[in-house]
Amino acid sequence: MYLNINFPTQIVSGIDCVSKSGALITKLGAKKAFIVTGKSGAKKSGALDDVTNLLVLLGMEYEIFDEISENPPLLVSHRAGRICREKSCDLIIGIGGGSALDASKAVAVFAANDIEPMDSYNPEKCKGALPIIAIPTTAGTGSEANSYAVMTLPTGEQKKTIKYPFTYPKLALVDPKYTYSLDKEYTISTALDAFAHAIESYLSPNSTLFSEQYALFAAKNIIEILKERPDTFSEEAREKLAYASCAAGAAISVTGTGFPHPMGYSLTLLDGIPHGMACAVFEGEYIALNMKTEKGKAKLNVFFSLLGTSETELSELLTSLANIKFSFTEEEIIKRVDLIKNAGNYANSPYVLSDCEKYEIYRKLFTNK
Amino acid sequence: MYLNINFPTQIVSGIDCVSKSGALITKLGAKKAFIVTGKSGAKKSGALDDVTNLLVLLGMEYEIFDEISENPPLLVSHRAGRICREKSCDLIIGIGGGSALDASKAVAVFAANDIEPMDSYNPEKCKGALPIIAIPTTAGTGSEANSYAVMTLPTGEQKKTIKYPFTYPKLALVDPKYTYSLDKEYTISTALDAFAHAIESYLSPNSTLFSEQYALFAAKNIIEILKERPDTFSEEAREKLAYASCAAGAAISVTGTGFPHPMGYSLTLLDGIPHGMACAVFEGEYIALNMKTEKGKAKLNVFFSLLGTSETELSELLTSLANIKFSFTEEEIIKRVDLIKNAGNYANSPYVLSDCEKYEIYRKLFTNK
Repeated sequence: MYLNINFPTQIVSGIDCVSKSGALITKLGAKKAFIVTGKSGAKKSGALDDVTNLLVLLGMEYEIFDEISENPPLLVSHRAGRICREKSCDLIIGIGGGSALDASKAVAVFAANDIEPMDSYNPEKCKGALPIIAIPTTAGTGSEANSYAVMTLPTGEQKKTIKYPFTYPKLALVDPKYTYSLDKEYTISTALDAFAHAIESYLSPNSTLFSEQYALFAAKNIIEILKERPDTFSEEAREKLAYASCAAGAAISVTGTGFPHPMGYSLTLLDGIPHGMACAVFEGEYIALNMKTEKGKAKLNVFFSLLGTSETELSELLTSLANIKFSFTEEEIIKRVDLIKNAGNYANSPYVLSDCEKYEIYRKLFTNK
Repeated sequence: MYLNINFPTQIVSGIDCVSKSGALITKLGAKKAFIVTGKSGAKKSGALDDVTNLLVLLGMEYEIFDEISENPPLLVSHRAGRICREKSCDLIIGIGGGSALDASKAVAVFAANDIEPMDSYNPEKCKGALPIIAIPTTAGTGSEANSYAVMTLPTGEQKKTIKYPFTYPKLALVDPKYTYSLDKEYTISTALDAFAHAIESYLSPNSTLFSEQYALFAAKNIIEILKERPDTFSEEAREKLAYASCAAGAAISVTGTGFPHPMGYSLTLLDGIPHGMACAVFEGEYIALNMKTEKGKAKLNVFFSLLGTSETELSELLTSLANIKFSFTEEEIIKRVDLIKNAGNYANSPYVLSDCEKYEIYRKLFTNK
């Protein structure tokens, strides 16, 4: 067990934290900001207005690139990076959900390195990135608190993560009010994503006392809210989810995620299932398999006890919230597993998943008996 | 409640972590190290040998300054800073207990700024510091995880803290084995110091979710060990105490400490009571007064419950471990309180201590009835 800490992101949180962060932004010494967002979330949440109002007050010029879509394509970030360079911007401000924040990190890399898209995975060719400010408008990704940028590759059917020490945001501004207008389904899906980060980080053999504290804190707060199966979310609940998501994001910055993540990517890319639901549907199997190992069982028993739940109760809650009822043919299953067979997360828990078991889990969950 | 995180120190922990940290040290890009230690701890613990062996392997030159004493005088650090500058060292490596680590931060400031001793408290005159590596050989100070350098002023009867964003160590290397040889009294005193950090940080109005997680983790682990009133400490217990101390040091980096700290300084400076004991003797009063406030009571009840203890049990444990049986005259009491009357910590808990109460607490604890 280690208490290793290496966490270069400064996190500032609370209602109206963006408008109060002028001095912190000025301290970054940038002249012109490149704002990276999707079409709607940054605007609807009020975050984009808060940011641009502040930049005007600070006398800082900015450009807006609002073309980031769900499961952000690497090529779009590559294009944005070129524009950012052409416009002489020297600071990236990502505003939005996981897609916009992840994309903003890739943009920061492409802006600082005039390289081909796939070179962004090559440490020899990526020598740094523009400084990044991350402003989440959902409570799930935790992207504001880690260095990961999950990109959809040009084939359109695979995801791959860019991560460097320099893709940690310099500053994360977490204002729970940006999540107030999110609907029930979206809120639950993003909360399930954050929960997946928490439990998968907690069980990782790479966990540290730092990451475990964050993972446990996040998991406890999320389950307290989800187990009530709420139809609406109070401001207090929104705040808890926002901070839990951020903490879980910091936890996976240490450990990475476990196998529910790649297993879920196929359902998202091929079947349009939101990322959080797509992970959650695999958590029951993930828990059951890890309970078969000595180390996993010991850790999970602490986890259940802290959360005031049991294996059965937690697995049922997650499965029912994921609410995915597919029946795939064997061909469809093979296609989905082949897509994610080579991900790196399968050994990131006490139970190491074999190739065969990937198919078996898909069959078990998605075949009508 | 905020989840604010701003923690610039990279912490690496574990047995033999120093000898494994060559790459991290190289990355700092320094040419010549200035090692700051006391006369004995760094040598007896084996830490100094580990460091110099590694530096030889890395081909990095070094100088050793081993004149740091308990309650380190500002003037000694000032002198060391001058020597460091003259020897053209560009990296400070502090090895030891709180005194050596705190002093190493002051040396880093004086080495980078050719200033008078008291100018080290003037932000206008301190423009930076050499990079610092902190290697604790005790489990109590937590100095490796924060920016504080508590210095004894030239009068010899007052302490004052240097702290700047640039006095956080760049790297902390926490190897529990350096604490194996510490005797029982020293181990308990330093553990009490770490516990004081934990509880005083937890109750601070400046606490964040980050600092509270660390404070609770530290307090729980320390009390689990201390409540057994052990005569010897297993390697597992040493590891727990080392990480708890580091976590509590990170917690106070956010919040600062509460009033037991200044109250204890007088007992240390005038009566030679070890710092941890000197704080612990005031914790019972600190807890009782904070239980009188709504906010303090709510927080402390969570604290007691997590630690599996009660107000009475915890206060009795701390008082008996502190084991201080003084009887002061009114004149002596006035001298001790006057010395620390203007410290900044009295408002750093839900209960704000008045001037009169400082004398009253001293009278209550240190007058034979």
